[in-house]
Amino acid sequence: MSNLQFLKPSGSLFVDRDVTRFSDIVKAWEGKEIQGVGLIGAPLSKSSISHSGAHLAPGTIRKALSAFTTYSVEENLDLNEWNIQDLGDIVMHVTDIIHSQERIFETLLEVYATNQNFLPIILGGDNSITYPSIKAFTKAKGRVGVIQFDAHHDVRNLEDGGATNGTPFRSLLETKTIEGKNLIQIGIRDFSNSKTYRTYVKEKGVSIYTMKDVRENSIKNIMTEAIESLNKSVDVVYVSLDMDVVDQSEAPGCPAIGPGGMSASSLIEAITLLGEQPKVKGLEIVEIDPTVDFRDMTSRLAAHVVLNFLKGKEKAKLR
Amino acid sequence: MSNLQFLKPSGSLFVDRDVTRFSDIVKAWEGKEIQGVGLIGAPLSKSSISHSGAHLAPGTIRKALSAFTTYSVEENLDLNEWNIQDLGDIVMHVTDIIHSQERIFETLLEVYATNQNFLPIILGGDNSITYPSIKAFTKAKGRVGVIQFDAHHDVRNLEDGGATNGTPFRSLLETKTIEGKNLIQIGIRDFSNSKTYRTYVKEKGVSIYTMKDVRENSIKNIMTEAIESLNKSVDVVYVSLDMDVVDQSEAPGCPAIGPGGMSASSLIEAITLLGEQPKVKGLEIVEIDPTVDFRDMTSRLAAHVVLNFLKGKEKAKLR
Amino acid sequence: MSNLQFLKPSGSLFVDRDVTRFSDIVKAWEGKEIQGVGLIGAPLSKSSISHSGAHLAPGTIRKALSAFTTYSVEENLDLNEWNIQDLGDIVMHVTDIIHSQERIFETLLEVYATNQNFLPIILGGDNSITYPSIKAFTKAKGRVGVIQFDAHHDVRNLEDGGATNGTPFRSLLETKTIEGKNLIQIGIRDFSNSKTYRTYVKEKGVSIYTMKDVRENSIKNIMTEAIESLNKSVDVVYVSLDMDVVDQSEAPGCPAIGPGGMSASSLIEAITLLGEQPKVKGLEIVEIDPTVDFRDMTSRLAAHVVLNFLKGKEKAKLR
Amino acid sequence: MSNLQFLKPSGSLFVDRDVTRFSDIVKAWEGKEIQGVGLIGAPLSKSSISHSGAHLAPGTIRKALSAFTTYSVEENLDLNEWNIQDLGDIVMHVTDIIHSQERIFETLLEVYATNQNFLPIILGGDNSITYPSIKAFTKAKGRVGVIQFDAHHDVRNLEDGGATNGTPFRSLLETKTIEGKNLIQIGIRDFSNSKTYRTYVKEKGVSIYTMKDVRENSIKNIMTEAIESLNKSVDVVYVSLDMDVVDQSEAPGCPAIGPGGMSASSLIEAITLLGEQPKVKGLEIVEIDPTVDFRDMTSRLAAHVVLNFLKGKEKAKLR
Amino acid sequence: MSNLQFLKPSGSLFVDRDVTRFSDIVKAWEGKEIQGVGLIGAPLSKSSISHSGAHLAPGTIRKALSAFTTYSVEENLDLNEWNIQDLGDIVMHVTDIIHSQERIFETLLEVYATNQNFLPIILGGDNSITYPSIKAFTKAKGRVGVIQFDAHHDVRNLEDGGATNGTPFRSLLETKTIEGKNLIQIGIRDFSNSKTYRTYVKEKGVSIYTMKDVRENSIKNIMTEAIESLNKSVDVVYVSLDMDVVDQSEAPGCPAIGPGGMSASSLIEAITLLGEQPKVKGLEIVEIDPTVDFRDMTSRLAAHVVLNFLKGKEKAKLR
Amino acid sequence: MSNLQFLKPSGSLFVDRDVTRFSDIVKAWEGKEIQGVGLIGAPLSKSSISHSGAHLAPGTIRKALSAFTTYSVEENLDLNEWNIQDLGDIVMHVTDIIHSQERIFETLLEVYATNQNFLPIILGGDNSITYPSIKAFTKAKGRVGVIQFDAHHDVRNLEDGGATNGTPFRSLLETKTIEGKNLIQIGIRDFSNSKTYRTYVKEKGVSIYTMKDVRENSIKNIMTEAIESLNKSVDVVYVSLDMDVVDQSEAPGCPAIGPGGMSASSLIEAITLLGEQPKVKGLEIVEIDPTVDFRDMTSRLAAHVVLNFLKGKEKAKLR
Repeated sequence: MSNLQFLKPSGSLFVDRDVTRFSDIVKAWEGKEIQGVGLIGAPLSKSSISHSGAHLAPGTIRKALSAFTTYSVEENLDLNEWNIQDLGDIVMHVTDIIHSQERIFETLLEVYATNQNFLPIILGGDNSITYPSIKAFTKAKGRVGVIQFDAHHDVRNLEDGGATNGTPFRSLLETKTIEGKNLIQIGIRDFSNSKTYRTYVKEKGVSIYTMKDVRENSIKNIMTEAIESLNKSVDVVYVSLDMDVVDQSEAPGCPAIGPGGMSASSLIEAITLLGEQPKVKGLEIVEIDPTVDFRDMTSRLAAHVVLNFLKGKEKAKLR
Repeated sequence: MSNLQFLKPSGSLFVDRDVTRFSDIVKAWEGKEIQGVGLIGAPLSKSSISHSGAHLAPGTIRKALSAFTTYSVEENLDLNEWNIQDLGDIVMHVTDIIHSQERIFETLLEVYATNQNFLPIILGGDNSITYPSIKAFTKAKGRVGVIQFDAHHDVRNLEDGGATNGTPFRSLLETKTIEGKNLIQIGIRDFSNSKTYRTYVKEKGVSIYTMKDVRENSIKNIMTEAIESLNKSVDVVYVSLDMDVVDQSEAPGCPAIGPGGMSASSLIEAITLLGEQPKVKGLEIVEIDPTVDFRDMTSRLAAHVVLNFLKGKEKAKLR
Repeated sequence: MSNLQFLKPSGSLFVDRDVTRFSDIVKAWEGKEIQGVGLIGAPLSKSSISHSGAHLAPGTIRKALSAFTTYSVEENLDLNEWNIQDLGDIVMHVTDIIHSQERIFETLLEVYATNQNFLPIILGGDNSITYPSIKAFTKAKGRVGVIQFDAHHDVRNLEDGGATNGTPFRSLLETKTIEGKNLIQIGIRDFSNSKTYRTYVKEKGVSIYTMKDVRENSIKNIMTEAIESLNKSVDVVYVSLDMDVVDQSEAPGCPAIGPGGMSASSLIEAITLLGEQPKVKGLEIVEIDPTVDFRDMTSRLAAHVVLNFLKGKEKAKLR
Repeated sequence: MSNLQFLKPSGSLFVDRDVTRFSDIVKAWEGKEIQGVGLIGAPLSKSSISHSGAHLAPGTIRKALSAFTTYSVEENLDLNEWNIQDLGDIVMHVTDIIHSQERIFETLLEVYATNQNFLPIILGGDNSITYPSIKAFTKAKGRVGVIQFDAHHDVRNLEDGGATNGTPFRSLLETKTIEGKNLIQIGIRDFSNSKTYRTYVKEKGVSIYTMKDVRENSIKNIMTEAIESLNKSVDVVYVSLDMDVVDQSEAPGCPAIGPGGMSASSLIEAITLLGEQPKVKGLEIVEIDPTVDFRDMTSRLAAHVVLNFLKGKEKAKLR
Repeated sequence: MSNLQFLKPSGSLFVDRDVTRFSDIVKAWEGKEIQGVGLIGAPLSKSSISHSGAHLAPGTIRKALSAFTTYSVEENLDLNEWNIQDLGDIVMHVTDIIHSQERIFETLLEVYATNQNFLPIILGGDNSITYPSIKAFTKAKGRVGVIQFDAHHDVRNLEDGGATNGTPFRSLLETKTIEGKNLIQIGIRDFSNSKTYRTYVKEKGVSIYTMKDVRENSIKNIMTEAIESLNKSVDVVYVSLDMDVVDQSEAPGCPAIGPGGMSASSLIEAITLLGEQPKVKGLEIVEIDPTVDFRDMTSRLAAHVVLNFLKGKEKAKLR
Repeated sequence: MSNLQFLKPSGSLFVDRDVTRFSDIVKAWEGKEIQGVGLIGAPLSKSSISHSGAHLAPGTIRKALSAFTTYSVEENLDLNEWNIQDLGDIVMHVTDIIHSQERIFETLLEVYATNQNFLPIILGGDNSITYPSIKAFTKAKGRVGVIQFDAHHDVRNLEDGGATNGTPFRSLLETKTIEGKNLIQIGIRDFSNSKTYRTYVKEKGVSIYTMKDVRENSIKNIMTEAIESLNKSVDVVYVSLDMDVVDQSEAPGCPAIGPGGMSASSLIEAITLLGEQPKVKGLEIVEIDPTVDFRDMTSRLAAHVVLNFLKGKEKAKLR
């Protein structure tokens, strides 16, 4: 055997023949019609109110994913037969933020149009990507319900800064891209919102579960309630996860961290349950800034969110 | 409109007209009689046994506070009508630690004397400020009960190092500034204390809730028990919070961190309950060293302590 | 009194005459027969698949231990009468990893042979030390049962890299050093293992408690079950703790961190219970890399593991 | 004397009656006509090609300045009689970068119009601020010569990203805001530029001193040559300092660091000489990202640049 | 144009049509005979005496290279016509260090045998790779002269640890792979070596230039002397650069840093001169540990070493 | 041979039989009369105006020293025959800074009294230790000349903070412990001092070499001038080194860093020359704060200062 067998691309991972890593089931998209799940990055963070390196998260989440395996020992279930497409990242414009948001919308719309069985997992970026992303999703899929995990309502006015990471749900509601009754906000936190905005979402018919609700109820019950409500009124459900819904001790790499948040285990339980739902056909993860994280802990949590979402899908399939 | 409208002091925060930040309800004290809550810093940490930058915490806690809003979405209650005075910090002497502690006593005593309706929130500094602070409080207010959240008894002898951050409750008990039966220690932790000191406080009649007690009882029950006991025997209650009562994973910025501590959510629940009590008229937060913290996480928790303390006060007011 | 009284070795800790630190009850071993507990370091980490500084952990754990006291306030129990020997570290070879592993085996075997009442607390190092360590333990003590806290099965094949930190239990089972039925794995985690290896351990008769089992049962019940099972079939029990069994938020300094792990408090409860068991006669702590930890938080947790293990022993003694 | 004398705003610096700090001679501008030097921040960094926190530099440079004194012991010369206005920062728009650049232009233009004796020291921000800044300067002052310290030509095309931190001198030359012959680039570095752009600037008549020129000539001679050339053809000279002209070992906090750069001492010598020149009437410092710096070292160097610029002015005055 | 144009692989760099980056002229090797320069990584660092992450340097140096351009503005010379092959990294064994060193030897030998016009740039790894690397070079090329930039002699005995990063030149001399008179050590530093080893190399006929020699002579003269000497007695020259020859302030990311080292500018001058020499046909860069570096400063310097080596080659070509 | 040969104290360094480390020639003092050089730590930093961890420097400097060897390859001179006593550190009081300074004075005085041939190398600590240290030195040795390397005059008034790290030379001059004409300050830096204090030292007859003097003259000439002057008027010379005399890029771990400082190589040259002087009989190194340093770079420089000081002594001995 040639001694050249040892030459491999720089940074190659250790190979154990008896282990399937998540990266083993991911392939770079080559343009064919996508069946099932794909990853796509939306590395926009110049739209953030505070300084944010969230545009780097698509890279760190992918790296975290590649360190985990495809096997759920808890369910004795393996994702190794999945075939996941990686569509890469949507390149952002350097100085035109509005145009960058349009690129997200246009790119997703075209991908959805030509890949009707594509189930997107969108890696932000900051929360401003949610508006173009869900706008494209709605155009492609019909009536959309949204389950939003977030410490914040994110319905800021657009006069004081434009379309920022604080405004996506304002834009979605104002443009009627989604209806208020089809938006469910989970994990809204004390001293991180304003009364004006709480009143606004209430008037729009949005359902709110504050952290008090999360602490005092089981996350399972909240999910059941949310899904039952949406199943009646929408065609598809999109899960929007602002990672700052999680407590600062478990998601230290979000721009706006604080105490009093959701536990990572509750989030993972919720995501698994959502994955099991047939109408849940889209997932986004936003607001992770790897430059302020500790050991990519928050990207590792994001990777587990992706894996447990797929575990939910696999569980539903096996039923 | 002039183009000079855009000139603002360096470091100004983003303004959203629909949001009231905590910093919007705080004003620098101008010397008039204070009605209600005020902040005052006691930036002393040279008195610490181990190297400590706790003198920087009054700055980082204020900064953390300014990032949060006045609105509790959990209780649908807004603090935006409050008017909080910021008295600044008590300047410490560079080389005379004893004199610095006296400055704390003298300054507080004079502030209390001329502002009888002042409810102080004191931002340390290390735990050595507790003795001069409570001494002044006692002189001004009568019989004082103290609820101390702390991993440690803090009754070290004064021979081995003088009045350090390990001795405040020794000084308070020895000088009879407070009576042992009016001191309640919560969160005392394994392998962080000595038998001699546990015996000492027991003999003085101090009530102790170890972390085992906290784990096995609800914090609500402990608080009820504590308040009922103090309500009978004191005029006012002072809450002394050494942030190291919280587990190292949630309060990583304390000098003496370790596992086995209280959860942040238990602490916040306890503080809110204490805020509701009419006799609770003082709060101090000590032992946060921002130079070893991660992303000011511990100062952010301190900010939530302040906010939930006020939430408790507001809840009581609304009844 | 001479002014030279103030000259002490560099780095001496503050002395409080009323406090016994853990370091006060530890003495450097001078070669006499050891009665009871001793510490011994196995600073090997070149055997790790990923870059690891775990060889530094024997130093940081000792340092963390010296910062805690001997007194359990929860149980009102003091370890101050204990006399713990520190045998130092087994020096590793610079370039011959296999030889380093043999040194661990040979050294431990000789220590066990000449110190039959020695109860070892072994400070790794990475998980590859487990094979030589338990091999020596078995040779010296007879039938050994192992309770392994670990996110991973650690039964990788030996073809793809030799005897690494991923293979120790493979080696132990293949060489029949321990029997599968006498191995109990606790805390096995989702997406961190492979189906092949789960099948392998199942076939060997190993008991597995996944994190789902840990979440859904009390750790106390699991421990009871485990101990009851082992008490019937083995002479002695060895506790192998890979610190990555703990969640990344509470043990951030392990090489392979992730979400979904055990809580530190469950671990400490388990260890205390194991300490109480007379057959439990060995403990190892591995996979802490101080170079990537935050404020030695993971070494501090390891110190509490040691302390609570001794607390268990002391509780059993006092019965 | 009242004990309240010790109450001072949080973060107050130590006062030594015999020392004048730079911050003692700086006052917040109150709108009156400015005579002489003023500081003004342009905290824009969203226009950067790579992720940059340069918008934070106006704050860190001011903080660094406040730590130094007004006294040059080398020249036995004191700036303590100076009266420097701090105009604050120009607030940037959150999402409209072009508008932010216009704000810089409009604000500076209006300030220049109403304050004809104002000598601006502009604190960036990234290098994209240079175009609006010099455009305003030209409008207000006539023919402007520019001495640019920079590792890069900064004449990138505007098609590939718009008006970024790589394009300011392209914009200035294309719009004929300045003439090529009146632009002198110093410190242009190997492997950090392209031949196309070098050809472009050469064709425009720009003077270039590469790092080879800087190494092989004295900085004093280069400055003399530059000033003599500009004195003939312009009304005023503006000094544009991209801090990445300095070697990475002495200015580690710039986004685009590398070896082979200018020494800090050469830069300071050059700046002092320029300060002495009567036609030099503007200075900007850009491309410091405090989030990646070490101990604000690069902002401290920027502070010394400001101080030595003023020293040059003072020396000229004393002649 | 399709909106899919914006989809690019995650982490793609900004593209400016007028700039050629170094990464634009590097291609992954596809196995054809290599003409000219190629990069090859030897990511071994388990052989180091102290803990080292030098195996990560091939990745960080490549990343640093991709951030620089192909254009030398100092010489007005462009490398954009070069075609550089990237052969990837030689995968190391996890636990068998000796075998890893053999892999380096075998791989290089085979590459040299089948690619006689290949000029290797070898990216370590630690200094232990030097022995297998030069052994292969000698086998393939005939009499080899070595110019070693290093703070240390690196001729440790092999008894006290085997073939470590401290022994390569001992092995080369003992095995007569190179002759002592054909080895030139430059930058040997005070208090970083032993008299025994200095005597050893002297006896072998090695030429030594200590840092005193470097400080008191021009690096140009030393290079001239060295090259003239080697040109007479060898067929080819191999340049071995241990980055710790550079002062700690300019190469902070080496395992064994200290003051009193060579300046980065002297190193770059020397490397450029060596690049110009026709007999210089190999370059290695070792002992960069990115895990302890600041902002990859040392890898950036390594990138400039590579670039200036090529600049030397290009200059020679243009003559 | 017993397998127990591999048991060594935790943290033992790699042993190469052919290398003498500095730590090999240092012994813990056992109380016998000291002949020659000894190390003694003065870990006081609570006296600093700004937050300082300089009390940790005696530990980090010792650790840095142990990593270097005894052999000067530049001079082909070995210190391996030296026998250096380590007296440990003078324990500081926790809360009484004045008393701590007295402990330094009393301890040193007693050590000097009973060890007349002791040549102290004193490891601070902050610069406040200089007053008690030189006071003891003067009492023991007669007329003392001081060569002070420092960016600052350090003659602050004592009213504004007491005996801090800014006042030692004020105290020495006011108490006439040393005469102004016997004090030589080298490296005094721009914008780091006040005119008042420069006037003060001038009036006292102190010699000042500013950084301009250092830049424009050779350090060798300055040293010759200084030594010639002192040799005439004093019995012994004490070298006081405040490490902040060195530029921030080479001594990044001092509390008060800035640009414009002395190079490390000039400092080392100066120290070597001073070591050669028979009247130079004391050395102190102060103002290194390891908690803000990068990789103990500043402590490593301090170690080289010690080594080169001894090299100077050895060179003088060999003459």
